[in-house]
Formats: sequence, structure tokens, C-alpha cells
Amino acid sequence: MTDSGNVSTDVVAPTTPVPPDIEIAEAATIIPIVELARDRLGIDAADLVPYGHTKAKVSLAHLRTLTDHPDGNLVLVTAMSPTPAGEGKTTTSVGLADGLSLIGQKAMVALREPSMGPVFGIKGGAAGGGYAQVVPMVDINLNFTGDFAAIAAANNLLAALIDNHVHHGNALDIDPRTITWKRVVDLNDRALREVVVGLGGPVNGFPREDGFDIVVASEVMAIFCLATSIKDLRDRLGRIVVGYTRAKKPVRAADLKAHGPMAVILRDALAPNLVQTLEHTPALIHGGPFANIAHGCNSVIATTAALKLADYVITEAGFGADLGAEKFIDIKCRAAGLSPRAIVLVATVRALKYHGGVAVADLKAENVPAMEEGMSNLRRHLRNVTEVFGVPAVVAINRFPSDTDAEIERLKELVAALGSVAVEATHYSDGGAGCADLARAVVEAVEACAGPVSFTYPDELPLAQKVKAVARRIYDADTVTFDAKARKKIEQLEAEGYGHLPVCIAKTQSSFSTDPTMRGAPSGHTVNVREVRLSAGAGFVVMLTGEIMTMPGLPKVPASEHIDIDDEGRITGLS
Amino acid sequence: MTDSGNVSTDVVAPTTPVPPDIEIAEAATIIPIVELARDRLGIDAADLVPYGHTKAKVSLAHLRTLTDHPDGNLVLVTAMSPTPAGEGKTTTSVGLADGLSLIGQKAMVALREPSMGPVFGIKGGAAGGGYAQVVPMVDINLNFTGDFAAIAAANNLLAALIDNHVHHGNALDIDPRTITWKRVVDLNDRALREVVVGLGGPVNGFPREDGFDIVVASEVMAIFCLATSIKDLRDRLGRIVVGYTRAKKPVRAADLKAHGPMAVILRDALAPNLVQTLEHTPALIHGGPFANIAHGCNSVIATTAALKLADYVITEAGFGADLGAEKFIDIKCRAAGLSPRAIVLVATVRALKYHGGVAVADLKAENVPAMEEGMSNLRRHLRNVTEVFGVPAVVAINRFPSDTDAEIERLKELVAALGSVAVEATHYSDGGAGCADLARAVVEAVEACAGPVSFTYPDELPLAQKVKAVARRIYDADTVTFDAKARKKIEQLEAEGYGHLPVCIAKTQSSFSTDPTMRGAPSGHTVNVREVRLSAGAGFVVMLTGEIMTMPGLPKVPASEHIDIDDEGRITGLS
Repeated sequence: MTDSGNVSTDVVAPTTPVPPDIEIAEAATIIPIVELARDRLGIDAADLVPYGHTKAKVSLAHLRTLTDHPDGNLVLVTAMSPTPAGEGKTTTSVGLADGLSLIGQKAMVALREPSMGPVFGIKGGAAGGGYAQVVPMVDINLNFTGDFAAIAAANNLLAALIDNHVHHGNALDIDPRTITWKRVVDLNDRALREVVVGLGGPVNGFPREDGFDIVVASEVMAIFCLATSIKDLRDRLGRIVVGYTRAKKPVRAADLKAHGPMAVILRDALAPNLVQTLEHTPALIHGGPFANIAHGCNSVIATTAALKLADYVITEAGFGADLGAEKFIDIKCRAAGLSPRAIVLVATVRALKYHGGVAVADLKAENVPAMEEGMSNLRRHLRNVTEVFGVPAVVAINRFPSDTDAEIERLKELVAALGSVAVEATHYSDGGAGCADLARAVVEAVEACAGPVSFTYPDELPLAQKVKAVARRIYDADTVTFDAKARKKIEQLEAEGYGHLPVCIAKTQSSFSTDPTMRGAPSGHTVNVREVRLSAGAGFVVMLTGEIMTMPGLPKVPASEHIDIDDEGRITGLS
Repeated sequence: MTDSGNVSTDVVAPTTPVPPDIEIAEAATIIPIVELARDRLGIDAADLVPYGHTKAKVSLAHLRTLTDHPDGNLVLVTAMSPTPAGEGKTTTSVGLADGLSLIGQKAMVALREPSMGPVFGIKGGAAGGGYAQVVPMVDINLNFTGDFAAIAAANNLLAALIDNHVHHGNALDIDPRTITWKRVVDLNDRALREVVVGLGGPVNGFPREDGFDIVVASEVMAIFCLATSIKDLRDRLGRIVVGYTRAKKPVRAADLKAHGPMAVILRDALAPNLVQTLEHTPALIHGGPFANIAHGCNSVIATTAALKLADYVITEAGFGADLGAEKFIDIKCRAAGLSPRAIVLVATVRALKYHGGVAVADLKAENVPAMEEGMSNLRRHLRNVTEVFGVPAVVAINRFPSDTDAEIERLKELVAALGSVAVEATHYSDGGAGCADLARAVVEAVEACAGPVSFTYPDELPLAQKVKAVARRIYDADTVTFDAKARKKIEQLEAEGYGHLPVCIAKTQSSFSTDPTMRGAPSGHTVNVREVRLSAGAGFVVMLTGEIMTMPGLPKVPASEHIDIDDEGRITGLS
């Protein structure tokens, strides 16, 4: 009922042309999760919290028993600056994990949970694609194990408690004009971006301007993904700053006694979700913060759990390496004491041509010179990974049907000329077998890893200097400017004791610069920070450059129009 | 992790004084749900969709195999007009099911799922109380199996699609001023009652007045509880009327192609949730619509499933018998072809004294004359059950510690004088043993049941006449009046072909009249319908008398302030 697909240990052989994602997923053979956990991970059924027969949470109590186990090797999958369609980080992560399994390594993949909003909008699902998917695909893309619903409920309980506090006498003297805490839904709903609440007279509270974000943009999501235990979760929730008193003192969730009940709502969700790839590689899919105003990685609990359970853990971070990898390292690794031993940079011939100046409509045509031109983008990402972060890099060429052999071969040469290795990966059409070479290259890179990751900046650098460090070292910018209110906010936050936090820079993913139209590898540009937001519970300071959308809208013809269900409960149109 | 309590087949012996609900629940021994389903209900593990070890959905595919099984006996638990504290319908339902199990009957209880909003507000949880509870109590009161989150997501997807349609050219020519479809959250949040959405310029859509309801007040919840299959669910969702075109034609969810994806979101939730009482009687807890603007009963799917699985099925309906039992019969039984074979009227000495004019503060003091005076209320409910609905009645005296033996004995005499039987029930402090006598009386009543339930009015009666039938036959009102806009709406709905639907009267639960201060058994009063709302998907027309709150607020000191979690994940303060 809740579980899609058939139960068996077989792997369905790929066919050409590649069928739609949902057809592959629904035809998949899925090992009962209790068996997979027992046979592949040594986890007893009693240590699982099953959600149907093909999904389970791994109990936090069990994970606590693994603390003394040695850690496996962490491999981050990131990408060059993407085209609007994306370059396939999730499929590459899944394919690489399957490729590692295929060459005899004990591998797992740790991914973000999809948000339901985009499933009904433009983007569709986010459980991989082609023959590189996690299953049960329908469940993962929809309600899954209820984590996002719990995060939304916790977020919205805090919002209700804030307005309720003001309504009932406002003992904390909250200045309603300073309330920054928004409500959330897990849908694309532009009409909720800017609203006025509390209308209709005194019985309904105080009117004030407000807004809704999509749940993945919430600080609760970021906290959920950085928390290491129930206690840490509750403490972080308590530190959330929701606004200011009339005397300009921060008001925290703990002041409203909201953090306890919020943690109560989130208790069960905090255990990571175990599923599997089409080829039965165990996958932990847990948490999914935005990669702009948050750090864009799955939960720390899932990543650390996977490292205890497998020798190779493949994980991904949102957007290109300038955003995703930087935040993965400077925020997540710093907070959780993690260190990747290799970084896979996903590159596509399409994206290279795009950065070489080719229009989106012309990306399918062979164009080696444009690809050579676009190497500037990949080159800088490679430099950042190896020289700034000090981690061995492997370039994964995610091959598309329109790519020509000439393009692929030239790309390999160009990367080799930079002293790195580029490996063609055909997981989308071939599954793990299409990533076996990539897997071997990753094992080599891991074994060559000389030491722990380097951060872009140290904790003690002032906030503005941290932005400058990232802008200069990662983006090759020349100057960082701050709007007056941003500079004032930084001063205020440093005075309040938040100066030691890492920064989370919200920037376009389409360019190293803050201008999405500047392709390739712009340098000497200026980064302007127009707004600064504190995420005290998550433990970072968000620096916004340009407009960042925290509530997407639906397109004219939403994907929902093609999603339906028949009388037997079979779902169609999900991709 | 997700499951509270210990796993064993023992039942914890009651102690005096009765500990807090959560302490009893957390000390409870819970039979693994797979074993309970197998041993008590003959359901294989493969036909369950487990959610942890103590909760599971029973697959719809399995339920379809039971179609030809004979039905058990349906027993409705309802109540006299309640005091503000409620008279204990849920605890009596649970205790009665345990009592039936104790005297050797194969019994189940089918209840509504609690809403999370009130858990953090005033009311607390709704999984029973004392030694008459369903477990795992914490889970049931919080995220449970995610049904309410799925209902909220389906509801809010439709809302987003409406505003998105208007934004992208409004091909259906929806008049935005006529949109009646509200968004929902499963929280008490008064600031969301009346809002303006779509502010901030063209990119955010069209500004319009809007509002949020609590999820239990949504039509999707009512539809979910009346649907008999995935197909019926999808069809009902498609019939939802969300507003009108400028040419005043109804706009349906199907016109927005929203019903398919809404049913997709709800697919897994539609299977009923199996848990157990403290004494291991199987319980289906599924759906939970408001008892004012909706019909206030658990899902048809759960009730019909329970009737296939047990010989006695105890279910409850919200508020007093004038509201809950009437809607249970005229809406749910009519739609689903159900017929109760006995109705248990829960009465308390407290409520009788209240209806005899005693102030709430004085209800603990013995006062037999006031109780005799308050019998007018119980007498009319008894008359309605036996004479209007034609169902055998049993009065359950839910005994409170402050009740005196003199009061209890006099109450039994008074009911006996009316030709009915009243049985003392002490399930709160004694568990099922405290309901053994009540169980025997219920078995006798069921065996005496002469025929199917009678409806208050036939389908073909015009809408206004249906209200008059209920008002005169159930409320003893003399006159029904309609505000001009209500009368106009009735004419419009009848012209649109909705005249055959049953009516769902939203009225105060505190009185037979529409005035909550009129205790006892007022007669000759006037019922005024001030507003009429169509629930075309649910299949009823809501008639609102007085102000009906569809989004509760939080009190000055919300229950959330006392709810917390310790470092080991133990939850405290939930009641």
C-alpha cells in the first residue's frame, strides 16, 4: 500500500531508451528494508522503526551504540556552476554509490529529502533519475516518513506562540514590527510570500506584515540537519531569535518556552531514513535545507551514521561547488567535525558549452571550441577544491545522449592537462555499471588524501572578513561591499556575540559572481551583501546577495496537472 | 524510538489515585502491532503497513478481501449536552470496548485521530484518559501516521493551484472575491483566521482576503472520512466547489485538475490506523473532522473495516447526541449504509447538575434536587435516540470521584423510570473492569435491536425543510428562520442540483437551542441559520447557526509550556 515496487533481490536490467523515472521505479525490485538493514548493515529489526516494508528509520538509540566504530571515507559530490537544468549531482551520487558496491566496496549514499512543493511545480521529484534512483521513489517524493511535516509543525507552533504571546499581554515586550519568524508550508505558493495576518479585530490578535517560506527554507530545517542529538536539537531550537523587544533585546524561542514542544514534535523525525538504490545500495535520506539561505546538505545525523555503517559514504551538497561544497565544508564539516577524503565535481559537456557562451537552445550541438572556452568554470572549481579545501578531486563527466565522443575525449584531455582525472559516467542509462570507472578513480583519490579538509576562514575572523575570504578565495571577487543596513546588522550581531559563527552566503548558483548572466570564471567582480539574517539556532549568519526566493511559485502548467492516481492506487506522471 | 511504552502482553493493574495520563501510557505494555493484528484479527504482517512497532495501517487491498464477511454490531457512543469540560465519550468508548473484551466478546473501538493544535492549547490530547486510553498515546496525539499532514498538504495544494490559476491568466475566469477555499494548518493559530494574501506586487499574485482553518475543519478532512475507496476519494475531491466564475458558475477542484494530485497525496493516509487500548483491544483511529461544520466521526473506511473484523464495534461522534449522533446517522450512516444497533448516552452527575442550574464551580457538591432538574436534558436525548432514530439506548454514568452514591443511585432510578437502563461506569479509574456491567447492558440492547436506524429526514426533502425537521424533532425548536443571504444561498444550491444532500447543522454543543446559556431542555425556541456553505465533495450542506470557530486560538498559558523532552527523548507534560 505505502510501498511502491516489487519485493525481491533482483536488479532490473537497463533498457534503451531509458523509460520514465516512475516506470523504472515502479518496476524495481526492492529488498524488504528489515532484510537490507540486517544483511548489509548488521542492524536488527528491533533497532529499526519501519514505515511500511521498504522504508525505516534507524533508531537514535542504535546509532549511539556505534560511537566507537571507525569512520568510513566521506566523499562529497558537488558540481561546476550548473545550467538551469542542473548537471545531475543526485544521479551521480546514487550511481557512484552503486558503482562502489559493484567493485566490492561497502558503500552508502546520504542524500537530502525532496521537498513536495517542487514535485507539483516545475522541478519534479528529487530521488535521482533513470537507472540511478533511490526507491520507493513515489514515497520519497511525497509524504515519505513525515519529517518535513514535523518540521513545518514545529516551525508553525513557534509562529503561533509568538503571535499568541503578543495577543495575551506581551509580557516580553516584543516589538511586533521586528518579528522575523515566518510560517512555512511544503508547497510552492507565491500568494503566501507576503501576507498580513491578525486581521478581523481584537479577537484575532494584532495585524502585522508577515510571510510564508517553503519548509526547506526554514531555520528549523537547517537546525534539524545540523543537530547531533535530541538535546542538541532542543538547545539549538531554544537559541532561535524570532525578533526583538522594544528595548532591542533579542527574543529567543526559549523565552517563549517553545523549544521543548518543538523538539517533542521533531523527536521521531530526527532518526535518519533508510531506503535503498535500485541496485540495493543502502541509502540514508534525511533532511533537506535550501542551499542558498541555508547550508544545503542532508542531516549530520545521517552522514555520521552512514560513516559508522559503511566504508564509503557518498553525499551531495546543493548547487555548484562555490556554494554547496563551500557551505558543506565551512558550515557542516566545521560544526560536525567531518572531513571529506575526496570531492567529485560533476561536469557536463552541456554546462561547459554553456559557460563557453552557447545559448541553452544550442547546447545539444557538438561544439568543442565552446567547451574548451567553458573549461574556465570547471578549472576554477577544481582549483578551489584542491587548493582551498585541500581535498583530492575527481571530475565526473555525466554523459548526456547528445554528447559526442569528440567532446568527451577532449574534455578528458583538458582535465588531465590540469593534473586531475576526468571519468565518464553513464549511470543514468546504465546504473552502477556506468560508474564503475568513476568508483575506481574515487577510491584512488581517497587513498591519496593527505589530511583533513581546510576551511576557507577561521572561526575568529570577523563576519565581514569571512565574507571577503569566501569572495576572494572561492569566487575570485575583488571587492565586497555591504548595504548600510547589512553593515549595521553585522555590527549588531557581533555586539550580541554572534561574530564567531560561520557565514552562509546566499548567491546565484549560475555564476561565480552575483550576476547570474556572468558565465565562465569571472574575476575582479564585486560582491554586494544587501541583507544579513541571523540563524542563531542553526549557527550561521546568512549574507544575502541579490534576491533570494524563499517561497517558489507554480508555473502556468504545474507538474500537478499530469500527476494522477487510478482506482487501484497506482500513481502516474510523477517524475 | 517512535514507539512509547513497553512491549509485552501484560496489562498494568490500576492504582489509586489515578496517575497522569502520560505516566499510565508510558508504563503500558503494548503488544507488537504485527502480533496483535495476527492473533486478534487474523491479519498477516504483509497486509499491514507498519509505522514503528506499535502502529500500523491495514492495507486497503486486505480490506477489499473482507467485503463478503458478515458485519459485526455497531454501537455509537454519544452524550447528553456536555459541560465545558466534556463528559468522557472517548474514555467511555475505550472502556466499553475493553469491557466487551473482558466479558468475552470480540470487540474493537473506532475513534477519531486527535488534532495536534489542541494538544498544545487547552484541551490536551484525545487518546482517552486514566485507565481507558489508546496507546502509543504520545504518537497518537502528535504526528501519528501523518494522516493530518497529508490532508493539510492536499488542501493547501488546491489553494495554491487556485491562486496560481488566477495569477497565470485566469482561463476559468474565477472571480477572486468568491473564492471560499481556505488554507489549513493543524495548529491553534488565531492570527491566521483572517489574512490578506498575494501582497508585494504582481510577482506574488493578486491580493485578496483569505483565511486559514484548523485542518480538522477542512472539507478535505470530511471527504477523507466519508470516502469508501481511492476512486471515491478522487471523485469527491473533484466535486469540491472552490468559488465561482464571474458568470457565477461553480468552479470545482476538477476544473483545476487538482483532484488527482490531491488523491495522490492522500493515497497512503486512506488506509486506517491500527493501534490498541491499554488492555489490548484493537483500535482503529482514523480521520477526525470537526463536529460543527463537519460530521464529527472517524472515517467510514475504519468503521466498515472494524465491522468486518469484530463482533462489536464501538465508535463515537463529537459533542452531544443532538449534534454528533444526528450527524452520525443522517450523514455518515446514510452515506455509508451503516446502522447502529445500540446507542450509549454518556451522562455524568456533573452535567445533570449543570443542566439543573448549578454553577460550574459548585458541580462537585452533592445536589440531588439539581440533578433531578437536569434530567430534562438527558430525557430528551433518550427520547431522540429511541423514538427519532429508533435505536435501543443505554445510559452510561461516567462516574467522577466527586459523585456521591446517593446521586448515582437516584440517577439510575430516574432513568429506569423512563423505561431505560443506566449503568455506572468506572473505566477511568478501573479500566475495562469498570465497564463490564455496561458491556453486558450493551449486548442486551444490541440483541433487542429491532431494525435499522431511522433518519431524521428523507433525501428528497428541500434543504430548508431538512433543517426544520432536525430543529423540531431533535432540538424541540418551534421556528427556523434564515438570514436573507442564507435563504438565497439555499435557493442557489437547490438550483445547482445540491438539494438532495443532507444538512450539517453547526450549532453550540452546550444547549439544544442555539443559545449556549439555555441549559436543560429548552423548547419552543427559534433556530436562525445565518450562513450556508456547500461541502459538495463531502456531500452535505453546512447550516451555520451562531458563530462557529474554525480556527481555535491558544490560551494565555498554552499547554505547550508544560510539554518538554529530556535528553533521552522522554516526553513529559502531555495530557
